[in-house]
Amino acid sequence: MPIVELHLLQGYGSEEKRRLHDGLTDAVRLVVPALPDAITVLIHEMEPDNYSRGRKHRVGAPALKDPGNIVKRYLKAMEARDFDSARSMLGEGFSMQFPGAEPMASLKELLDWAGPRYRIVKKTYDGFDVMQSSGPEALVYCRGNLSGEWPDGTAFDSIRFIDRFEIEGEKIMRQDVWNDIAEARAKA
Amino acid sequence: MPIVELHLLQGYGSEEKRRLHDGLTDAVRLVVPALPDAITVLIHEMEPDNYSRGRKHRVGAPALKDPGNIVKRYLKAMEARDFDSARSMLGEGFSMQFPGAEPMASLKELLDWAGPRYRIVKKTYDGFDVMQSSGPEALVYCRGNLSGEWPDGTAFDSIRFIDRFEIEGEKIMRQDVWNDIAEARAKA
Amino acid sequence: MPIVELHLLQGYGSEEKRRLHDGLTDAVRLVVPALPDAITVLIHEMEPDNYSRGRKHRVGAPALKDPGNIVKRYLKAMEARDFDSARSMLGEGFSMQFPGAEPMASLKELLDWAGPRYRIVKKTYDGFDVMQSSGPEALVYCRGNLSGEWPDGTAFDSIRFIDRFEIEGEKIMRQDVWNDIAEARAKA
Amino acid sequence: MPIVELHLLQGYGSEEKRRLHDGLTDAVRLVVPALPDAITVLIHEMEPDNYSRGRKHRVGAPALKDPGNIVKRYLKAMEARDFDSARSMLGEGFSMQFPGAEPMASLKELLDWAGPRYRIVKKTYDGFDVMQSSGPEALVYCRGNLSGEWPDGTAFDSIRFIDRFEIEGEKIMRQDVWNDIAEARAKA
Amino acid sequence: MPIVELHLLQGYGSEEKRRLHDGLTDAVRLVVPALPDAITVLIHEMEPDNYSRGRKHRVGAPALKDPGNIVKRYLKAMEARDFDSARSMLGEGFSMQFPGAEPMASLKELLDWAGPRYRIVKKTYDGFDVMQSSGPEALVYCRGNLSGEWPDGTAFDSIRFIDRFEIEGEKIMRQDVWNDIAEARAKA
Amino acid sequence: MPIVELHLLQGYGSEEKRRLHDGLTDAVRLVVPALPDAITVLIHEMEPDNYSRGRKHRVGAPALKDPGNIVKRYLKAMEARDFDSARSMLGEGFSMQFPGAEPMASLKELLDWAGPRYRIVKKTYDGFDVMQSSGPEALVYCRGNLSGEWPDGTAFDSIRFIDRFEIEGEKIMRQDVWNDIAEARAKA
Repeated sequence: MPIVELHLLQGYGSEEKRRLHDGLTDAVRLVVPALPDAITVLIHEMEPDNYSRGRKHRVGAPALKDPGNIVKRYLKAMEARDFDSARSMLGEGFSMQFPGAEPMASLKELLDWAGPRYRIVKKTYDGFDVMQSSGPEALVYCRGNLSGEWPDGTAFDSIRFIDRFEIEGEKIMRQDVWNDIAEARAKA
Repeated sequence: MPIVELHLLQGYGSEEKRRLHDGLTDAVRLVVPALPDAITVLIHEMEPDNYSRGRKHRVGAPALKDPGNIVKRYLKAMEARDFDSARSMLGEGFSMQFPGAEPMASLKELLDWAGPRYRIVKKTYDGFDVMQSSGPEALVYCRGNLSGEWPDGTAFDSIRFIDRFEIEGEKIMRQDVWNDIAEARAKA
Repeated sequence: MPIVELHLLQGYGSEEKRRLHDGLTDAVRLVVPALPDAITVLIHEMEPDNYSRGRKHRVGAPALKDPGNIVKRYLKAMEARDFDSARSMLGEGFSMQFPGAEPMASLKELLDWAGPRYRIVKKTYDGFDVMQSSGPEALVYCRGNLSGEWPDGTAFDSIRFIDRFEIEGEKIMRQDVWNDIAEARAKA
Repeated sequence: MPIVELHLLQGYGSEEKRRLHDGLTDAVRLVVPALPDAITVLIHEMEPDNYSRGRKHRVGAPALKDPGNIVKRYLKAMEARDFDSARSMLGEGFSMQFPGAEPMASLKELLDWAGPRYRIVKKTYDGFDVMQSSGPEALVYCRGNLSGEWPDGTAFDSIRFIDRFEIEGEKIMRQDVWNDIAEARAKA
Repeated sequence: MPIVELHLLQGYGSEEKRRLHDGLTDAVRLVVPALPDAITVLIHEMEPDNYSRGRKHRVGAPALKDPGNIVKRYLKAMEARDFDSARSMLGEGFSMQFPGAEPMASLKELLDWAGPRYRIVKKTYDGFDVMQSSGPEALVYCRGNLSGEWPDGTAFDSIRFIDRFEIEGEKIMRQDVWNDIAEARAKA
Repeated sequence: MPIVELHLLQGYGSEEKRRLHDGLTDAVRLVVPALPDAITVLIHEMEPDNYSRGRKHRVGAPALKDPGNIVKRYLKAMEARDFDSARSMLGEGFSMQFPGAEPMASLKELLDWAGPRYRIVKKTYDGFDVMQSSGPEALVYCRGNLSGEWPDGTAFDSIRFIDRFEIEGEKIMRQDVWNDIAEARAKA
């Protein structure tokens, strides 16, 4: 039966407020065993005139883009081999870690490394989990299955994978990948 | 500069309230690009006498245990081969998915399956990520490195892994595991 | 000096909010011996975007009609012998209890019963009292005086009466009537 | 889904707060068609140090006694013929109106008037309805059945009655009575 | 880290709300050693429909003019020798006290008295301090330097002064003046 | 009819809260022409467990001493010629400005300067006005009359004075003095 009130500067849209409603509700649900229906969230929007901190009016900073959507767009660009778009979503200092590879810092390295490992790869998704870490980065987990073709042209599918992304300032800073490709290759 | 007020029935302890402060702060930070220091959380505890819903006083349900701690205790019990303790943390309908294995439903199956794959395995942890899903289950991700001995006694280490747990009603309902064991074996 | 704040979904009109102001003020006055002027009521209306329960936005249900007005319209229709209108205000399972009569369930029964008792009857009102019961029904008391003509055409007036109505879902479910008609007849 | 917050000076007991919870809940229910369970009431008690009006701290006035209980004690005293107790509950300017009688102002008048009308009378109660009027007086309605003996010693029972009381400053200021005694006598 | 919420009837403008933000912030700062940036003020404006006291809706009274501005306009009118304007800002019962003079009640008295003391006098301002007293009057202090000409035509400048004004109902009720004119004359 | 709510970390005493009540009330009165009795202040004290900013619990800083009391103690020490106490209340960088004197920075300078000007001087007070400036300093104005003896032993009294103090971090940083001593001397 908890009630959450959020006082917020005016200027956030419906979708952004929906994310706040969900996040605040779930933050309570993680600790209090209330049914979702027993948790009420009230957002009180403040006009700039009606809000001051340190005697100064303030304007609400634009909302952060949904990190889950950033990752979805990144994955879509990668699948479409639109590497310019994908690269534009990576932050300064980006790094990635794939199974059996050294850490890589650029899409070029990734493409060079992946080249001999599979000819085509596609992802289907079982789910995305999005959260804010205690640090500056938001976290996005996505998991599902890989399908595609080995370098020799034979097909593979139903290979489990999970990706972990760190997003900071709306840029992807880190990607960690785990999957069963080696299991599958060993079986093949 | 957002301010969160949580009205809550009395009875939650300091640690439980700290988890609420953190979760509510982070729920806002996922959307609003405010520095953590600009986010204030106020918890207003209500005595039962001062709270009613539907004309009835209510008592706050005991807090849910931290799902991260449940998983840590489970992993510790598994490492200590204290399978009774570990089993007691699993819920009715528990299932697990390991790389290269069929879905399993009991620790016995797991032990039988793992037996020929490695003699000893230990985990060191790089991090735990805990969140409430939109459904009834809380999610715990933990990741790090495996070390141990192959069946032939040779040592291995620095094998990346990640586990995903679903916790519901303070019981582990599902464990999904990804790791680089097959990569390592392929290299060995 | 009590202050009442009501958080309400947007969509209630001025008249409906006035009823809420009055009812909340009087609810406090029944317990706290404050002068009315010392009781402040603040209504905070929530836009649907700013309100969620169980992660879902909600729309406020249309206000219930003032039960006092429902009864006034019913009494007016009865006096005008507009029985169709009156009947439309009665709920499924309606019953009524008049002095010296068996419980009745329809206007027809009432008319049949009243026929030989008085030729004409009119009500003047001293007051209406409206409240919500602890159950689903709202209560309306109205009291005043009856005037009219006995079956023999002689006039009567100043006969005290009181009616008690139960209203549920905006329909009249029960009417209980007390009056001094028998006293008057005995004197006549 | 309405939420009511009441800010109140410290010093009200559990029973008094329960009356406030009920009254505030019902005030909302009279207008908003929410299930009782969807209405939350939060009482925030203020220590005198934490409350000021006009720069002055205040002490909450003692709660008004439940008018329903005042009437119940009055009716009990009358039935027990403890007229001193009953009289002590009447306020300066008390008046009462019984069927077929002139307005009366004292218990003595009532006893003189009732003497020839019935030898013994007892009340059984179907219900009490308590509300604050828009004026200074609280209202209590009680209704039920009378049983007893006529002056000639014959018994009567199941005679419907309703009483309306006005209470002000914890004193009964007015009692209006309606019943079916004349109906019963006419039939007898 | 204190948070101030002000519930106010609708109808105050931006400038008036800015004065409230500043005053409330400073009222806290006088007691709590928080940096200004750590003090948040939220103004919640209430539509008349959403506010009642004593079951009656209210309209917010127009804001009081800034007493600092009233004094500035008065001083400007005096300097411009626009005595009609200046006089219109004085309240019934106005009095003033200048160094070495008896209390005076009208601008005429002041001009007669000042005539032989200096031919011209101008004020430059170092600062204005504005506050509400605990009584009905607002206080305005202004201080700075006087320059001008003595009756013999010689110039003076840099003579310190301070004025204290009491403003009530937007009218100046009292002016107290201190300055170093006598010091300067003694030196001259 | 404005209502002020202050959310504050626990730990402030009654006297400190009284100063907050007064200051917040007066801050509203400076703008809104409400009678003091129409302004309500509610202080909500937060236990450290129930308050976080940036995910960290905080402890309320000890209240600042009343600047009016600091000045009163300083003036009392000066009158009692307890210069050590008086000096301990002055901050680093203290300066003072007396009529007809150069700015001074120490009590010794003041005593040397005042020596030939009067043998004894005492203050009686008509009032103290205390406020927070928009800057870090609190302001205290005190005014009243001087009495004492001239160097030649003749008495004087009823000489008007006003002092303006700036207090920062509970230390007096600046004192500005205006009075009619030169007027009085000129007349003598």
